[in-house]
Amino acid sequence: MATIKALDTHDLRFPTSRQLDGSDAMNPDPDYSAAYVVLRTDESTSDGEPLGGYGLVFTIGRGNDVQTAAVDALRDHVVGTDLDELCADLGGFARRLTGDSQLRWLGPEKGVMHMAIGGVVNAAWDLAARRAGKPLWRFISDLTPDEIVACIDWRYLTDALTPDEARAILTANLASRDARRAELAERGYPAYTTSPGWLGYSDDKLAALCRSAVADGYRTIKLKVGRAVDEDLRRLRVARATVGPEVRLAVDANQRWDVAEAVDWLTALAGFDLAWAEEPTSPDDILGHAAIRRGVQVPISTGEHTQNRIVFKQLLQAEAVDLIQIDATRVGGVDENLAILLLAHKFGVPVYPHAGGVGLCELVQHLAMADFVAISGSMQDRAIEYVDHLHEHFTDPVRIVAGRYQAPTAPGMGGRLTERSVAEHSYPDGPVWRVATTEQPEGGR
Amino acid sequence: MATIKALDTHDLRFPTSRQLDGSDAMNPDPDYSAAYVVLRTDESTSDGEPLGGYGLVFTIGRGNDVQTAAVDALRDHVVGTDLDELCADLGGFARRLTGDSQLRWLGPEKGVMHMAIGGVVNAAWDLAARRAGKPLWRFISDLTPDEIVACIDWRYLTDALTPDEARAILTANLASRDARRAELAERGYPAYTTSPGWLGYSDDKLAALCRSAVADGYRTIKLKVGRAVDEDLRRLRVARATVGPEVRLAVDANQRWDVAEAVDWLTALAGFDLAWAEEPTSPDDILGHAAIRRGVQVPISTGEHTQNRIVFKQLLQAEAVDLIQIDATRVGGVDENLAILLLAHKFGVPVYPHAGGVGLCELVQHLAMADFVAISGSMQDRAIEYVDHLHEHFTDPVRIVAGRYQAPTAPGMGGRLTERSVAEHSYPDGPVWRVATTEQPEGGR
Repeated sequence: MATIKALDTHDLRFPTSRQLDGSDAMNPDPDYSAAYVVLRTDESTSDGEPLGGYGLVFTIGRGNDVQTAAVDALRDHVVGTDLDELCADLGGFARRLTGDSQLRWLGPEKGVMHMAIGGVVNAAWDLAARRAGKPLWRFISDLTPDEIVACIDWRYLTDALTPDEARAILTANLASRDARRAELAERGYPAYTTSPGWLGYSDDKLAALCRSAVADGYRTIKLKVGRAVDEDLRRLRVARATVGPEVRLAVDANQRWDVAEAVDWLTALAGFDLAWAEEPTSPDDILGHAAIRRGVQVPISTGEHTQNRIVFKQLLQAEAVDLIQIDATRVGGVDENLAILLLAHKFGVPVYPHAGGVGLCELVQHLAMADFVAISGSMQDRAIEYVDHLHEHFTDPVRIVAGRYQAPTAPGMGGRLTERSVAEHSYPDGPVWRVATTEQPEGGR
Repeated sequence: MATIKALDTHDLRFPTSRQLDGSDAMNPDPDYSAAYVVLRTDESTSDGEPLGGYGLVFTIGRGNDVQTAAVDALRDHVVGTDLDELCADLGGFARRLTGDSQLRWLGPEKGVMHMAIGGVVNAAWDLAARRAGKPLWRFISDLTPDEIVACIDWRYLTDALTPDEARAILTANLASRDARRAELAERGYPAYTTSPGWLGYSDDKLAALCRSAVADGYRTIKLKVGRAVDEDLRRLRVARATVGPEVRLAVDANQRWDVAEAVDWLTALAGFDLAWAEEPTSPDDILGHAAIRRGVQVPISTGEHTQNRIVFKQLLQAEAVDLIQIDATRVGGVDENLAILLLAHKFGVPVYPHAGGVGLCELVQHLAMADFVAISGSMQDRAIEYVDHLHEHFTDPVRIVAGRYQAPTAPGMGGRLTERSVAEHSYPDGPVWRVATTEQPEGGR
């Protein structure tokens, strides 16, 4: 009987604040970080390598130790798990973690504890996909409708979506899955880019990066906004003048505004024919998003900080959003994201997955591709965010060609870091941080 | 210049699961716990004692180490703080903690990280009240309307309540504060009790505890429900037969149901003339609570797990609740609870504070009493939950006389534990747990 022998964690941090990469209206100086999870087993892959499962929770610096401690708190639920049982019932595994009544008090199903569960659950799916020798998007899209339905925690969902409705959605797309797998393998999945638009960049840098993005094949570019309306107008003029009328421009306020302020600000920006305005206010404010959406002529979106399926459900019920972002490491893992993708499809709302950070592109592409094959059946009006940071630290980095994510072929979910990167970025003792704390005492805190 | 010299934390746990105290439909075996915070200063009180600030975050066992680590993550924002500046701007102190952009990613404003902020903020208010020689309810109710308005983080609130509206509410009650202080000192504040109603208790124990509760002067008793509808009907019949028609009975489902299930179940229970049904579904489901409320003839409430002011705002905007519970250690501390009390008053919804656990009675009574003096001006249709557990561990335990909380007179917020209790309940090395892990290997985990 093969089992999970160990759950290892690592507090990894990348000193991104030194270049103002990732700067926005709420996050002036992030140090992209990962609470990294490794599940070790006593089984080997067909290559004779030890079989493992790899996952992470993305954070932006301080507190990554707390996030790592939360993953450690799940160890007793994980170590000793039989691999056959795990792979036959990944949904049951996830529900066992979210159902621990004492840990549940720390959420429930939100924040540090829920993200920790998401990191471990993703690592378990990574393990199962590696064991099957498949990239995760393919592993999911090979599951039967009943198997996918069984992954989902239906509690608190049934007023918006029932298991029978989900089964019907999945069954309707079953016969055409092969055609979509072939399309994915051939063409990949559309990407959009946020790389040009960080608030910390100069107008010249913005224009140069917009030009490169268009030359690289991107059809949608997202700019951070929300520090000052004049600055946003100026930066949007620069971007629009650079990219021309055909490329879509989106904006992201990173939760900067109250409701009335969002309506005023977005009204001022509406002339730029925006593809969407993202996170105009608190991610908790379902009714606020609905009020903003009613008040402006700009499509409204949110989701990268949306804590769980219950809030996504209400955003859809309240007609608060035109599109949603999902994030691979904010909610309780693959299972909960499958529920969210099914909800979005039922309500007819397209999904533009959030990525960037550390490993978010590597992870979330699998969810978007599984959605295309098995759930929504569409790449229309959809694109995965792409930011060109930190991919070199992963054993299977994303591949982007002509503005499209290429379908991964390596087994797993893509969140495995190189051994060298783990050693170098361990906080606070890895070499990157030993240098940093000598040269720049503020860098790591 | 006097400052905060140190922030100490303690992982304290009480083995309550051994008696099934605190058992409900979602929490079968809690070990009541506290991530305990002590702020040490280099100042002394008028008694010559070292001046400190004491706060805690209540949890129910596993994960209390994660909660404690989250409090530790705030240390750099706290140590070195000037006491004069702190006491002059408690709102600024709280906003500094919630505004740390890197830590904010771990919520934002929810779950482990937000509760940690609440614990530290409450400790700072405790310190300020001790320094002023006043119980916290009195300290708050001696603040001017402008000072209270300045405590609140107005972000994400202004579509429901503005600073000017809050100032008007506070100013209208200013002249009559003295009369209400006198009323509090004389009569105390109504309590209701949950002690009889835990799911793990037999019918005989339920009946005996109901009889005692009525004899002790309680006019409202709350029963846990949600495991089986027949069981709930039987237990409500026992309770109603014991207490007669005049005593109010409330029920608490602890988030057990989906929307349709809640409507069916509460319809079955509606014949018992319930005072309210608490936490019928997920605390995140604002629209779900609104749908349940529209579907039944029972007053609906929630709040002990409501993550922050933004969700409370929406519960009120959506007319999802007839009353709310506030909790002293779930949200970001005194400042955020003042915002919630002001919101509730504006929307005309009474507040029945959640208590029990470890120290929740000691803490939350101050918020209810400050509300009576300075905000709502009313004790009508209000009561603070009371559970007779673990009070002996506090230096200033609550005093209940004839079913009413007596107004505290000792300085501070009431959350200071005795040194002996801290030493005995430290986890996993305190004597209570060294015995437990020898005798009952499952007891502490």
